[in-house]
Amino acid sequence: MTTPCILCVAITGSVPTKAANPAVPISITEQVESTHAAFEAGASICHAHVRNDDETPSSDPDKFARLMEGVQKHCPGMIIQFSTGGRSGAGRERGGMLSLRPDMASLSVGSNNFPTRVYENPPELVDWLASEMKTHAVKPEIEAFDLSHIHKAAEMNRDGRIPGQLYVQFVMGVKNAMPVDRETFDFYIQTLNRLAPDAQWCAAGIGPNQIVLNEWAIAAGGHTRA
Amino acid sequence: MTTPCILCVAITGSVPTKAANPAVPISITEQVESTHAAFEAGASICHAHVRNDDETPSSDPDKFARLMEGVQKHCPGMIIQFSTGGRSGAGRERGGMLSLRPDMASLSVGSNNFPTRVYENPPELVDWLASEMKTHAVKPEIEAFDLSHIHKAAEMNRDGRIPGQLYVQFVMGVKNAMPVDRETFDFYIQTLNRLAPDAQWCAAGIGPNQIVLNEWAIAAGGHTRA
Ligand SMILES: [Zn+2]
Ligand SMILES: [Zn+2]
Ligand SMILES: [Zn+2]
Ligand SMILES: [Zn+2]
Repeated sequence: MTTPCILCVAITGSVPTKAANPAVPISITEQVESTHAAFEAGASICHAHVRNDDETPSSDPDKFARLMEGVQKHCPGMIIQFSTGGRSGAGRERGGMLSLRPDMASLSVGSNNFPTRVYENPPELVDWLASEMKTHAVKPEIEAFDLSHIHKAAEMNRDGRIPGQLYVQFVMGVKNAMPVDRETFDFYIQTLNRLAPDAQWCAAGIGPNQIVLNEWAIAAGGHTRA
Repeated sequence: MTTPCILCVAITGSVPTKAANPAVPISITEQVESTHAAFEAGASICHAHVRNDDETPSSDPDKFARLMEGVQKHCPGMIIQFSTGGRSGAGRERGGMLSLRPDMASLSVGSNNFPTRVYENPPELVDWLASEMKTHAVKPEIEAFDLSHIHKAAEMNRDGRIPGQLYVQFVMGVKNAMPVDRETFDFYIQTLNRLAPDAQWCAAGIGPNQIVLNEWAIAAGGHTRA
Protein backbone atom coordinates (compact mmCIF):
# COMPACT_ATOMS: atom_id res chain seq x y z
CA MET A 1 0.00 0.00 0.00
CA THR A 2 1.65 3.24 -1.09
CA THR A 3 -1.14 5.70 -0.28
CA PRO A 4 0.33 8.29 2.11
CA CYS A 5 -1.18 7.99 5.56
CA ILE A 6 -3.39 10.91 6.57
CA LEU A 7 -3.64 11.52 10.29
CA CYS A 8 -6.93 13.10 11.25
CA VAL A 9 -7.36 14.75 14.64
CA ALA A 10 -10.82 15.19 16.19
CA ILE A 11 -10.04 17.92 18.67
CA THR A 12 -13.24 18.21 20.63
CA GLY A 13 -16.07 15.93 19.61
CA SER A 14 -19.59 16.75 20.64
CA VAL A 15 -19.92 14.93 23.96
CA PRO A 16 -17.04 15.21 26.49
CA THR A 17 -17.07 18.14 28.91
CA LYS A 18 -14.39 19.71 31.10
CA ALA A 19 -15.96 17.92 34.06
CA ALA A 20 -15.37 14.54 32.37
CA ASN A 21 -11.93 15.48 31.05
CA PRO A 22 -10.29 18.80 32.01
CA ALA A 23 -8.01 18.52 28.97
CA VAL A 24 -10.89 18.82 26.45
CA PRO A 25 -10.53 22.09 24.55
CA ILE A 26 -13.82 24.00 24.61
CA SER A 27 -13.17 27.65 23.74
CA ILE A 28 -12.03 28.53 20.23
CA THR A 29 -8.63 29.60 21.65
CA GLU A 30 -8.19 26.23 23.38
CA GLN A 31 -9.28 24.43 20.19
CA VAL A 32 -6.78 26.29 18.04
CA GLU A 33 -3.97 25.59 20.55
CA SER A 34 -4.80 21.93 20.72
CA THR A 35 -5.07 21.63 16.93
CA HIS A 36 -1.71 23.35 16.60
CA ALA A 37 -0.10 20.79 18.91
CA ALA A 38 -1.60 17.93 16.87
CA PHE A 39 -0.45 19.61 13.65
CA GLU A 40 3.14 19.83 14.95
CA ALA A 41 2.85 16.14 15.87
CA GLY A 42 1.90 15.31 12.26
CA ALA A 43 -1.89 15.53 12.00
CA SER A 44 -3.03 16.75 8.59
CA ILE A 45 -6.83 16.91 8.99
CA CYS A 46 -8.65 18.75 11.76
CA HIS A 47 -12.18 17.38 12.32
CA ALA A 48 -13.97 20.14 14.19
CA HIS A 49 -17.04 20.52 16.36
CA VAL A 50 -17.72 23.79 18.18
CA ARG A 51 -19.29 24.39 21.58
CA ASN A 52 -21.36 26.99 23.30
CA ASP A 53 -19.93 28.68 26.41
CA ASP A 54 -21.85 26.18 28.57
CA GLU A 55 -20.02 23.37 26.69
CA THR A 56 -23.15 22.11 24.85
CA PRO A 57 -22.69 21.36 21.12
CA SER A 58 -23.23 24.31 18.81
CA SER A 59 -23.65 24.86 15.09
CA ASP A 60 -23.00 28.62 15.25
CA PRO A 61 -21.36 29.69 11.96
CA ASP A 62 -19.48 32.53 13.75
CA LYS A 63 -17.71 30.05 16.00
CA PHE A 64 -16.80 27.87 13.03
CA ALA A 65 -15.48 30.96 11.22
CA ARG A 66 -13.24 31.93 14.14
CA LEU A 67 -11.97 28.38 14.50
CA MET A 68 -11.18 28.16 10.79
CA GLU A 69 -9.33 31.47 10.88
CA GLY A 70 -7.26 30.36 13.88
CA VAL A 71 -6.38 26.99 12.41
CA GLN A 72 -5.46 28.50 9.03
CA LYS A 73 -3.15 30.96 10.77
CA HIS A 74 -1.47 28.52 13.16
CA CYS A 75 -1.44 25.37 11.02
CA PRO A 76 -0.73 26.39 7.43
CA GLY A 77 -1.86 23.74 4.94
CA MET A 78 -3.89 21.76 7.47
CA ILE A 79 -7.18 20.41 6.08
CA ILE A 80 -10.18 21.70 8.02
CA GLN A 81 -13.22 19.46 8.27
CA PHE A 82 -16.42 20.76 9.92
CA SER A 83 -18.79 18.33 11.58
CA THR A 84 -22.40 18.43 10.37
CA GLY A 85 -23.26 15.72 12.91
CA GLY A 86 -26.63 15.60 14.55
CA ARG A 87 -25.82 16.64 18.10
CA SER A 88 -25.10 20.24 17.25
CA GLY A 89 -28.47 21.24 15.89
CA ALA A 90 -31.65 20.12 14.20
CA GLY A 91 -32.26 19.90 10.46
CA ARG A 92 -30.61 22.43 8.19
CA GLU A 93 -28.97 24.25 11.12
CA ARG A 94 -26.42 21.45 10.92
CA GLY A 95 -25.13 22.77 7.59
CA GLY A 96 -25.43 26.52 8.23
CA MET A 97 -21.64 26.93 8.27
CA LEU A 98 -20.92 25.20 4.94
CA SER A 99 -20.90 28.52 3.10
CA LEU A 100 -17.63 29.25 4.95
CA ARG A 101 -16.15 26.76 2.49
CA PRO A 102 -14.04 24.57 4.79
CA ASP A 103 -11.93 22.00 2.90
CA MET A 104 -14.16 19.16 4.09
CA ALA A 105 -17.27 18.43 6.12
CA SER A 106 -18.62 15.24 7.63
CA LEU A 107 -21.76 13.86 5.95
CA SER A 108 -24.00 11.11 7.30
CA VAL A 109 -26.04 9.49 4.54
CA GLY A 110 -28.26 7.21 6.61
CA SER A 111 -29.79 6.84 10.05
CA ASN A 112 -28.89 4.45 12.86
CA ASN A 113 -29.16 4.01 16.59
CA PHE A 114 -26.80 5.67 19.04
CA PRO A 115 -26.40 4.65 22.71
CA THR A 116 -29.64 6.23 23.91
CA ARG A 117 -31.39 7.64 20.83
CA VAL A 118 -31.88 7.53 17.08
CA TYR A 119 -29.23 9.37 15.04
CA GLU A 120 -31.63 10.93 12.55
CA ASN A 121 -30.49 11.78 9.05
CA PRO A 122 -33.68 11.91 6.99
CA PRO A 123 -33.21 11.48 3.21
CA GLU A 124 -34.28 15.04 2.45
CA LEU A 125 -31.66 16.47 4.87
CA VAL A 126 -28.94 14.20 3.50
CA ASP A 127 -29.64 15.48 -0.01
CA TRP A 128 -29.68 19.09 1.15
CA LEU A 129 -26.37 18.81 3.03
CA ALA A 130 -24.76 17.09 0.03
CA SER A 131 -26.01 19.82 -2.31
CA GLU A 132 -24.70 22.56 0.01
CA MET A 133 -21.29 20.85 0.02
CA LYS A 134 -21.37 20.60 -3.77
CA THR A 135 -22.35 24.28 -4.12
CA HIS A 136 -19.56 25.47 -1.83
CA ALA A 137 -16.94 22.98 -3.10
CA VAL A 138 -16.65 21.30 0.30
CA LYS A 139 -15.43 17.69 0.12
CA PRO A 140 -17.65 15.37 2.19
CA GLU A 141 -16.24 12.75 4.53
CA ILE A 142 -18.98 10.10 4.59
CA GLU A 143 -19.60 8.81 8.11
CA ALA A 144 -20.44 5.11 7.64
CA PHE A 145 -22.08 3.83 10.82
CA ASP A 146 -23.49 0.81 8.98
CA LEU A 147 -23.05 -1.11 5.75
CA SER A 148 -25.96 0.46 3.86
CA HIS A 149 -24.31 3.86 4.30
CA ILE A 150 -21.48 2.68 2.03
CA HIS A 151 -24.03 1.59 -0.60
CA LYS A 152 -25.83 4.93 -0.28
CA ALA A 153 -22.61 6.95 -0.63
CA ALA A 154 -21.66 4.99 -3.75
CA GLU A 155 -25.13 5.60 -5.22
CA MET A 156 -24.83 9.36 -4.56
CA ASN A 157 -21.35 9.32 -6.06
CA ARG A 158 -22.59 7.58 -9.24
CA ASP A 159 -25.47 10.02 -9.77
CA GLY A 160 -23.35 13.10 -9.05
CA ARG A 161 -24.83 14.20 -5.73
CA ILE A 162 -21.37 13.55 -4.26
CA PRO A 163 -18.91 14.45 -7.02
CA GLY A 164 -15.31 13.26 -7.32
CA GLN A 165 -13.46 10.65 -5.32
CA LEU A 166 -15.43 9.33 -2.34
CA TYR A 167 -13.84 9.68 1.10
CA VAL A 168 -15.47 7.40 3.67
CA GLN A 169 -14.91 7.00 7.37
CA PHE A 170 -15.90 3.66 8.91
CA VAL A 171 -17.15 4.32 12.44
CA MET A 172 -17.16 1.35 14.80
CA GLY A 173 -17.69 0.82 18.50
CA VAL A 174 -20.68 3.12 19.06
CA LYS A 175 -23.17 1.27 21.25
CA ASN A 176 -26.32 0.22 19.32
CA ALA A 177 -24.62 0.96 15.98
CA MET A 178 -21.80 -1.18 14.47
CA PRO A 179 -19.47 -2.87 16.96
CA VAL A 180 -15.72 -3.18 16.37
CA ASP A 181 -15.62 -6.35 14.31
CA ARG A 182 -12.72 -7.43 12.11
CA GLU A 183 -14.79 -9.37 9.56
CA THR A 184 -17.13 -6.39 9.12
CA PHE A 185 -14.16 -4.02 8.78
CA ASP A 186 -12.72 -6.19 5.99
CA PHE A 187 -16.12 -6.41 4.28
CA TYR A 188 -16.50 -2.61 4.49
CA ILE A 189 -13.21 -2.19 2.59
CA GLN A 190 -14.14 -4.89 0.08
CA THR A 191 -17.60 -3.36 -0.53
CA LEU A 192 -16.22 0.16 -0.93
CA ASN A 193 -13.55 -1.06 -3.37
CA ARG A 194 -16.19 -2.94 -5.37
CA LEU A 195 -18.76 -0.11 -5.53
CA ALA A 196 -16.37 2.88 -5.78
CA PRO A 197 -12.93 1.62 -6.85
CA ASP A 198 -11.18 5.00 -6.52
CA ALA A 199 -12.57 5.78 -3.05
CA GLN A 200 -10.37 6.50 -0.06
CA TRP A 201 -11.30 5.59 3.48
CA CYS A 202 -10.34 6.06 7.09
CA ALA A 203 -11.61 4.48 10.28
CA ALA A 204 -12.68 5.75 13.69
CA GLY A 205 -13.23 3.62 16.76
CA ILE A 206 -14.94 5.11 19.75
CA GLY A 207 -13.03 5.25 23.05
CA PRO A 208 -10.55 2.43 23.69
CA ASN A 209 -11.42 0.90 20.30
CA GLN A 210 -9.64 3.74 18.50
CA ILE A 211 -6.26 2.04 18.94
CA VAL A 212 -7.52 -1.29 17.58
CA LEU A 213 -9.07 0.38 14.55
CA ASN A 214 -5.97 2.50 13.91
CA GLU A 215 -3.85 -0.64 13.78
CA TRP A 216 -6.27 -2.35 11.38
CA ALA A 217 -6.55 0.77 9.23
CA ILE A 218 -2.81 1.39 8.92
CA ALA A 219 -2.18 -2.26 8.07
CA ALA A 220 -4.95 -2.20 5.45
CA GLY A 221 -3.84 1.05 3.82
CA GLY A 222 -6.47 3.41 5.20
CA HIS A 223 -6.11 6.68 7.02
CA THR A 224 -6.44 7.09 10.76
CA ARG A 225 -7.99 9.40 13.26
CA ALA A 226 -6.32 10.21 16.60
CA MET B 1 -29.36 -27.96 3.23
CA THR B 2 -32.09 -30.07 4.82
CA THR B 3 -33.97 -27.37 6.77
CA PRO B 4 -37.60 -27.51 5.64
CA CYS B 5 -38.59 -24.45 3.68
CA ILE B 6 -41.05 -22.17 5.44
CA LEU B 7 -43.20 -20.06 3.17
CA CYS B 8 -44.21 -16.80 4.80
CA VAL B 9 -47.07 -14.73 3.37
CA ALA B 10 -47.35 -11.00 4.05
CA ILE B 11 -51.00 -10.48 3.26
CA THR B 12 -51.41 -6.73 3.47
CA GLY B 13 -48.31 -4.74 4.37
CA SER B 14 -48.68 -1.21 5.64
CA VAL B 15 -48.55 0.83 2.44
CA PRO B 16 -50.61 -0.33 -0.58
CA THR B 17 -54.22 0.83 -0.83
CA LYS B 18 -57.21 -0.41 -2.83
CA ALA B 19 -56.66 2.54 -5.18
CA ALA B 20 -53.14 1.29 -5.96
CA ASN B 21 -54.15 -2.37 -6.10
CA PRO B 22 -57.82 -3.41 -5.84
CA ALA B 23 -56.71 -6.93 -4.82
CA VAL B 24 -55.13 -5.76 -1.54
CA PRO B 25 -57.15 -7.20 1.35
CA ILE B 26 -58.06 -4.42 3.79
CA SER B 27 -60.95 -5.58 5.98
CA ILE B 28 -60.40 -8.39 8.46
CA THR B 29 -62.75 -10.60 6.43
CA GLU B 30 -60.74 -9.98 3.25
CA GLN B 31 -57.50 -10.60 5.13
CA VAL B 32 -58.71 -13.93 6.51
CA GLU B 33 -59.90 -15.02 3.04
CA SER B 34 -56.63 -14.08 1.42
CA THR B 35 -54.60 -15.79 4.15
CA HIS B 36 -56.71 -18.89 3.73
CA ALA B 37 -55.93 -18.99 0.00
CA ALA B 38 -52.20 -18.65 0.72
CA PHE B 39 -52.45 -21.35 3.39
CA GLU B 40 -54.07 -23.75 0.91
CA ALA B 41 -51.23 -22.92 -1.49
CA GLY B 42 -48.64 -23.92 1.13
CA ALA B 43 -47.84 -20.84 3.17
CA SER B 44 -47.08 -21.65 6.80
CA ILE B 45 -46.52 -18.19 8.33
CA CYS B 46 -48.94 -15.28 8.08
CA HIS B 47 -47.17 -11.92 8.61
CA ALA B 48 -49.99 -9.52 9.49
CA HIS B 49 -50.59 -5.80 9.51
CA VAL B 50 -54.07 -4.40 10.18
CA ARG B 51 -55.74 -1.32 8.72
CA ASN B 52 -58.28 1.24 9.75
CA ASP B 53 -61.47 1.54 7.68
CA ASP B 54 -59.87 4.41 5.73
CA GLU B 55 -57.02 1.98 4.82
CA THR B 56 -54.39 3.76 6.97
CA PRO B 57 -52.14 1.47 9.07
CA SER B 58 -53.50 0.64 12.50
CA SER B 59 -52.20 -0.94 15.67
CA ASP B 60 -55.64 -1.55 17.18
CA PRO B 61 -55.45 -4.70 19.37
CA ASP B 62 -59.14 -5.50 18.66
CA LYS B 63 -58.46 -5.77 14.94
CA PHE B 64 -55.43 -7.98 15.57
CA ALA B 65 -57.60 -10.16 17.86
CA ARG B 66 -60.27 -10.63 15.18
CA LEU B 67 -57.67 -11.39 12.53
CA MET B 68 -55.99 -13.96 14.75
CA GLU B 69 -59.30 -15.63 15.54
CA GLY B 70 -60.21 -15.81 11.83
CA VAL B 71 -56.85 -17.20 10.78
CA GLN B 72 -56.81 -19.78 13.58
CA LYS B 73 -60.28 -20.95 12.52
CA HIS B 74 -59.65 -21.08 8.76
CA CYS B 75 -55.95 -22.07 8.69
CA PRO B 76 -55.39 -24.59 11.49
CA GLY B 77 -51.72 -24.77 12.48
CA MET B 78 -50.68 -21.68 10.56
CA ILE B 79 -48.12 -19.51 12.40
CA ILE B 80 -49.41 -16.00 13.03
CA GLN B 81 -46.89 -13.17 13.10
CA PHE B 82 -48.01 -9.65 14.03
CA SER B 83 -46.14 -6.66 12.68
CA THR B 84 -44.83 -4.20 15.26
CA GLY B 85 -43.45 -2.05 12.43
CA GLY B 86 -43.30 1.69 12.71
CA ARG B 87 -46.00 2.77 10.30
CA SER B 88 -48.87 1.57 12.43
CA GLY B 89 -48.33 3.76 15.48
CA ALA B 90 -45.86 5.66 17.59
CA GLY B 91 -43.80 4.23 20.46
CA ARG B 92 -45.34 1.56 22.66
CA GLU B 93 -48.62 1.58 20.71
CA ARG B 94 -46.73 -0.58 18.24
CA GLY B 95 -46.64 -3.45 20.75
CA GLY B 96 -50.08 -3.02 22.34
CA MET B 97 -51.33 -6.27 20.79
CA LEU B 98 -48.49 -8.52 21.98
CA SER B 99 -50.52 -9.60 25.01
CA LEU B 100 -52.77 -11.49 22.54
CA ARG B 101 -49.85 -13.92 22.38
CA PRO B 102 -49.50 -14.45 18.61
CA ASP B 103 -46.95 -17.15 17.71
CA MET B 104 -44.51 -14.53 16.42
CA ALA B 105 -44.09 -10.79 15.99
CA SER B 106 -41.72 -8.73 13.89
CA LEU B 107 -39.04 -6.84 15.85
CA SER B 108 -36.78 -4.13 14.49
CA VAL B 109 -33.65 -3.73 16.60
CA GLY B 110 -32.12 -0.68 14.94
CA SER B 111 -33.01 2.42 12.94
CA ASN B 112 -32.47 3.18 9.26
CA ASN B 113 -33.73 5.33 6.46
CA PHE B 114 -36.85 4.51 4.43
CA PRO B 115 -37.72 6.10 1.06
CA THR B 116 -38.88 9.43 2.50
CA ARG B 117 -38.26 9.27 6.24
CA VAL B 118 -36.34 7.79 9.15
CA TYR B 119 -37.60 4.41 10.36
CA GLU B 120 -37.23 5.11 14.07
CA ASN B 121 -36.63 2.31 16.52
CA PRO B 122 -35.06 3.98 19.53
CA PRO B 123 -33.05 1.66 21.84
CA GLU B 124 -35.52 2.05 24.71
CA LEU B 125 -38.47 0.99 22.50
CA VAL B 126 -36.52 -1.97 21.08
CA ASP B 127 -35.86 -3.21 24.61
CA TRP B 128 -39.47 -2.73 25.64
CA LEU B 129 -40.87 -4.58 22.60
CA ALA B 130 -38.40 -7.43 23.17
CA SER B 131 -39.39 -7.66 26.84
CA GLU B 132 -43.09 -7.70 25.95
CA MET B 133 -42.44 -10.56 23.52
CA LYS B 134 -40.48 -12.42 26.18
CA THR B 135 -43.25 -11.89 28.78
CA HIS B 136 -45.97 -13.16 26.42
CA ALA B 137 -43.86 -15.96 24.90
CA VAL B 138 -44.04 -14.42 21.40
CA LYS B 139 -41.15 -15.41 19.14
CA PRO B 140 -39.58 -12.36 17.47
CA GLU B 141 -38.72 -12.26 13.78
CA ILE B 142 -35.85 -9.78 13.63
CA GLU B 143 -36.19 -7.38 10.69
CA ALA B 144 -32.62 -6.78 9.52
CA PHE B 145 -32.60 -3.68 7.32
CA ASP B 146 -28.84 -3.30 7.74
CA LEU B 147 -25.80 -5.27 8.91
CA SER B 148 -25.61 -3.79 12.41
CA HIS B 149 -29.11 -5.13 13.08
CA ILE B 150 -27.72 -8.66 12.85
CA HIS B 151 -24.99 -7.79 15.35
CA LYS B 152 -27.57 -6.20 17.66
CA ALA B 153 -29.90 -9.22 17.46
CA ALA B 154 -27.01 -11.57 18.30
CA GLU B 155 -26.06 -9.36 21.27
CA MET B 156 -29.66 -9.43 22.57
CA ASN B 157 -29.73 -13.19 22.06
CA ARG B 158 -26.50 -13.68 24.04
CA ASP B 159 -27.68 -11.57 27.00
CA GLY B 160 -31.16 -13.15 27.09
CA ARG B 161 -33.27 -10.22 25.90
CA ILE B 162 -34.19 -12.40 22.92
CA PRO B 163 -34.29 -15.96 24.27
CA GLY B 164 -33.98 -19.15 22.23
CA GLN B 165 -33.09 -19.62 18.61
CA LEU B 166 -32.85 -16.35 16.64
CA TYR B 167 -35.10 -15.96 13.60
CA VAL B 168 -33.92 -13.16 11.32
CA GLN B 169 -35.41 -11.73 8.15
CA PHE B 170 -33.02 -9.96 5.77
CA VAL B 171 -34.90 -7.09 4.12
CA MET B 172 -33.44 -5.78 0.89
CA GLY B 173 -34.56 -3.39 -1.82
CA VAL B 174 -36.08 -0.64 0.31
CA LYS B 175 -34.92 2.70 -1.08
CA ASN B 176 -32.39 4.45 1.22
CA ALA B 177 -31.92 1.25 3.25
CA MET B 178 -30.04 -1.85 1.98
CA PRO B 179 -30.28 -2.51 -1.78
CA VAL B 180 -30.61 -6.02 -3.22
CA ASP B 181 -26.97 -7.04 -3.40
CA ARG B 182 -25.71 -10.61 -3.67
CA GLU B 183 -22.39 -10.06 -1.86
CA THR B 184 -24.21 -8.41 1.04
CA PHE B 185 -26.78 -11.21 1.15
CA ASP B 186 -23.98 -13.80 1.40
CA PHE B 187 -22.20 -11.74 4.08
CA TYR B 188 -25.47 -11.47 6.06
CA ILE B 189 -25.73 -15.27 6.15
CA GLN B 190 -22.05 -15.66 7.01
CA THR B 191 -22.28 -13.06 9.82
CA LEU B 192 -25.43 -14.59 11.29
CA ASN B 193 -23.89 -18.09 11.22
CA ARG B 194 -20.76 -16.76 12.92
CA LEU B 195 -22.52 -14.77 15.65
CA ALA B 196 -25.51 -17.05 16.29
CA PRO B 197 -24.74 -20.49 14.83
CA ASP B 198 -28.20 -21.97 15.53
CA ALA B 199 -30.14 -19.04 14.04
CA GLN B 200 -32.65 -19.42 11.22
CA TRP B 201 -33.25 -16.76 8.61
CA CYS B 202 -35.54 -15.75 5.78
CA ALA B 203 -35.35 -12.97 3.23
CA ALA B 204 -37.74 -10.35 1.90
CA GLY B 205 -37.21 -8.22 -1.17
CA ILE B 206 -39.44 -5.27 -1.80
CA GLY B 207 -41.50 -5.20 -5.01
CA PRO B 208 -39.96 -6.91 -8.05
CA ASN B 209 -36.89 -7.85 -5.99
CA GLN B 210 -38.91 -10.39 -4.03
CA ILE B 211 -38.46 -13.03 -6.75
CA VAL B 212 -34.68 -12.52 -6.90
CA LEU B 213 -34.37 -12.79 -3.13
CA ASN B 214 -36.62 -15.87 -3.00
CA GLU B 215 -34.35 -17.62 -5.48
CA TRP B 216 -31.23 -16.71 -3.51
CA ALA B 217 -32.87 -17.69 -0.21
CA ILE B 218 -34.13 -21.07 -1.38
CA ALA B 219 -30.76 -21.92 -2.92
CA ALA B 220 -28.95 -20.88 0.28
CA GLY B 221 -31.25 -22.80 2.63
CA GLY B 222 -33.30 -19.93 4.03
CA HIS B 223 -37.02 -19.43 4.23
CA THR B 224 -38.98 -17.24 1.87
CA ARG B 225 -41.75 -14.72 1.92
CA ALA B 226 -44.34 -14.45 -0.85
ZN1 LIG C 1 -10.86 11.00 9.13
ZN1 LIG D 1 -17.29 14.46 14.84
ZN1 LIG E 1 -40.58 -14.47 7.09
ZN1 LIG F 1 -44.64 -6.11 7.64
